[in-house]
Amino acid sequence: MTLIAKIDHFVSVEDLTNEQILLLLKRASAFKQKDSWLWDSPKKQIFAANLFFENSTRTHNSFYIAQRKLGMDVLELDVKTSSLQKGETLYDTLVTLSALGVNVVVIRSNVKRYWENLINAPIIDCHVVNGGDGSGGHPSQCLLDLMTIQEEFGAFSDLRVAIVGDLIHSRVARSNMQMLTRFGAKIIFSGPKEWHNEEFDHYGQFLPLDDLIDKVDVLMMLRVQHERHNNQQNFSKEEYHKLYGLTKERAKRLQKRAIIMHPAPINRDVEIASVLVESPKSKIVEQMKNGVYARMAILEAVMSSR
Amino acid sequence: MTLIAKIDHFVSVEDLTNEQILLLLKRASAFKQKDSWLWDSPKKQIFAANLFFENSTRTHNSFYIAQRKLGMDVLELDVKTSSLQKGETLYDTLVTLSALGVNVVVIRSNVKRYWENLINAPIIDCHVVNGGDGSGGHPSQCLLDLMTIQEEFGAFSDLRVAIVGDLIHSRVARSNMQMLTRFGAKIIFSGPKEWHNEEFDHYGQFLPLDDLIDKVDVLMMLRVQHERHNNQQNFSKEEYHKLYGLTKERAKRLQKRAIIMHPAPINRDVEIASVLVESPKSKIVEQMKNGVYARMAILEAVMSSR
Amino acid sequence: MTLIAKIDHFVSVEDLTNEQILLLLKRASAFKQKDSWLWDSPKKQIFAANLFFENSTRTHNSFYIAQRKLGMDVLELDVKTSSLQKGETLYDTLVTLSALGVNVVVIRSNVKRYWENLINAPIIDCHVVNGGDGSGGHPSQCLLDLMTIQEEFGAFSDLRVAIVGDLIHSRVARSNMQMLTRFGAKIIFSGPKEWHNEEFDHYGQFLPLDDLIDKVDVLMMLRVQHERHNNQQNFSKEEYHKLYGLTKERAKRLQKRAIIMHPAPINRDVEIASVLVESPKSKIVEQMKNGVYARMAILEAVMSSR
Repeated sequence: MTLIAKIDHFVSVEDLTNEQILLLLKRASAFKQKDSWLWDSPKKQIFAANLFFENSTRTHNSFYIAQRKLGMDVLELDVKTSSLQKGETLYDTLVTLSALGVNVVVIRSNVKRYWENLINAPIIDCHVVNGGDGSGGHPSQCLLDLMTIQEEFGAFSDLRVAIVGDLIHSRVARSNMQMLTRFGAKIIFSGPKEWHNEEFDHYGQFLPLDDLIDKVDVLMMLRVQHERHNNQQNFSKEEYHKLYGLTKERAKRLQKRAIIMHPAPINRDVEIASVLVESPKSKIVEQMKNGVYARMAILEAVMSSR
Repeated sequence: MTLIAKIDHFVSVEDLTNEQILLLLKRASAFKQKDSWLWDSPKKQIFAANLFFENSTRTHNSFYIAQRKLGMDVLELDVKTSSLQKGETLYDTLVTLSALGVNVVVIRSNVKRYWENLINAPIIDCHVVNGGDGSGGHPSQCLLDLMTIQEEFGAFSDLRVAIVGDLIHSRVARSNMQMLTRFGAKIIFSGPKEWHNEEFDHYGQFLPLDDLIDKVDVLMMLRVQHERHNNQQNFSKEEYHKLYGLTKERAKRLQKRAIIMHPAPINRDVEIASVLVESPKSKIVEQMKNGVYARMAILEAVMSSR
Repeated sequence: MTLIAKIDHFVSVEDLTNEQILLLLKRASAFKQKDSWLWDSPKKQIFAANLFFENSTRTHNSFYIAQRKLGMDVLELDVKTSSLQKGETLYDTLVTLSALGVNVVVIRSNVKRYWENLINAPIIDCHVVNGGDGSGGHPSQCLLDLMTIQEEFGAFSDLRVAIVGDLIHSRVARSNMQMLTRFGAKIIFSGPKEWHNEEFDHYGQFLPLDDLIDKVDVLMMLRVQHERHNNQQNFSKEEYHKLYGLTKERAKRLQKRAIIMHPAPINRDVEIASVLVESPKSKIVEQMKNGVYARMAILEAVMSSR
């Protein structure tokens, strides 16, 4: 018998139990191994809708492909031409989608915890899947990161994971540090001091990159989110790369078993030397691949909840 | 044997016979009851194209879902990136779509009766379905409104229907007043005097909302179409609500069997007090649901015409 | 046994052998005759992605319909909301699409030979199909033009083909003159002298339209590409039509068997008198029809290459 995590709305990994997360990971791996229809064919059409208020190639397309691999019908809401432009609230848009027969909605928004008034509304009968909420969380990215690490090392216990870079603007950093800690990994932070604050101290030390580079199993480089920095950049690309990036020199000091991760899109030669992106230690392409299977598991889990 | 209205182009309800309308309504109800494939599977792929020159969530997505429920392939034309931007006319766009093998085109445009040179062109072999033509008509909305009223009351004869609000800018008001009159209902109008003109006198009286509220079976509130009012708004939201809106106080005076309708999107606390939107008398969500089935019936009717 | 041209990437017709082109044309005709599934149903889902950096109705929609007729799943990349807006390169976008499991990517770009670093990258596992590269080539248009001429005349040998108009900005002109020459047709050029240069001399004479009109089998009118002319237009529409366009008077001088072609969108009454567009000699609608079948053959060829 296949065990499937039954999750009504997938909005934050922090709210999931360890068992639910491990079930999702197991199911994602199963989808990956077969790359085929594992799911019981639905008796009726399932309609998914994607609502992306922020630009995205990976997350959006990855969900789309996952939806189509599960045989779902997909409604792509063009945020710029929808009635949201006539001043309609997200709540009323979901009332509409629910009435039209949409079963699951994937939303990316810059509003933290945008789902709070959606998931308890009796009038809305859609499963909500969080595709990222501002600087809040990015739970499907967290799941695919966990999947990539688990694939490589089998377990999380006592792994040393460095999260490096634009910490305060990163949805990924927060979810990953919490989940990895929960599963027994040790976190270390690095990057510019200006992009670090006391929020992270509870989870791990803050160290210069050169002090940790030869001690970590996983090196997670974060994207410099130029679009979220209002004030002028304090660093040139070259400076950033030299001070906080994975240069070719630093890469040589990595342990043999160490892997490089990045949520992408990458600023080549800023966070990572361009040549390293496609090097054997880099699991960046694997992360993207795993994203599709992790999202299939998520969509299956919410559709199986009722 | 299933009776299906065979309509070459669905462009205005006014051009349909009563029998055609009743057949469409019957078929829409059948789709709703089964929510399944009633239609004889087409032997070959059917391609539908959606061309929306004006923003729309409900109508556009509702047609999309109806198309997919009927197993059609859907071409979404992005009006902003198509050759319409290179100065191509709607006529030449339809020549192209027809040549590419598109069978049915749903168009929303701000040009009244935009279809006139399209439906008689020998070179264009597409069925045209009107998704709204400026302040002209909105026939699929009319059909779903009729469906919602018929579901509630069984028939239209002698029903008292009030249409309230932005009459002169409303595609919905015109089609509904004509069709409901044809089927024996009595129409009353209300709202700001500035948004009413002699065009409506033939169909019914114009009365203050407080004079009719306890006498109607159906209260159709129209959306204040801010985007069509060029001159500055004459009313604040609060004023409009107090003078012409369905306030909580007015709602208490409604007959027991009375229903509240609105084509949506709603300006909450303008046309209707927000809490009333999800109240038992409100059929607004039901209207949206019925929209999918009404549009399935329309698409089936045009595809069955040849 | 069905012969299918196996082409890894369809980027320029100039790189194809005559045999490959003739196989593609044969296969396109077969698709047209049956308008049905000729292709061996793929065992697994095929994902196609469309990336159009320039406006297009015909090419884009034609590829989409071809993809759907072949049963492919289609990912429409909205260039304006994708991570390309965050500064991501085309290379990295294709790395992503490849990782997500996309099998074939159709790209239209204004960058000449944009595919050069894409098709040899070991990390990118997508077939590239060129939907037009700036003023470079437009190979699928060339194939549909060849198909239309072949349908009409059976062969290309000794056909007299005039290519008229905006030669220097035309992707179509270059590919067509080369391929038609290769297959034995005779090319003649016409149009404004400013839009002609020595590049074309190798392929044929440059003559006034009135000197060639009664001697050609195929009259290919090119679109005046207003959006590519930076400096102000040298001609009014009326002047252009009178001097270089196919007027009603000129059309009377065409040979009985001559056909009129145009890649569309047409500037009516500029390149061609509006009434002639739908006249019996005009194969413009047929070109659009053939576009779908030519693109089915192209997509089949790249998917059959491995």
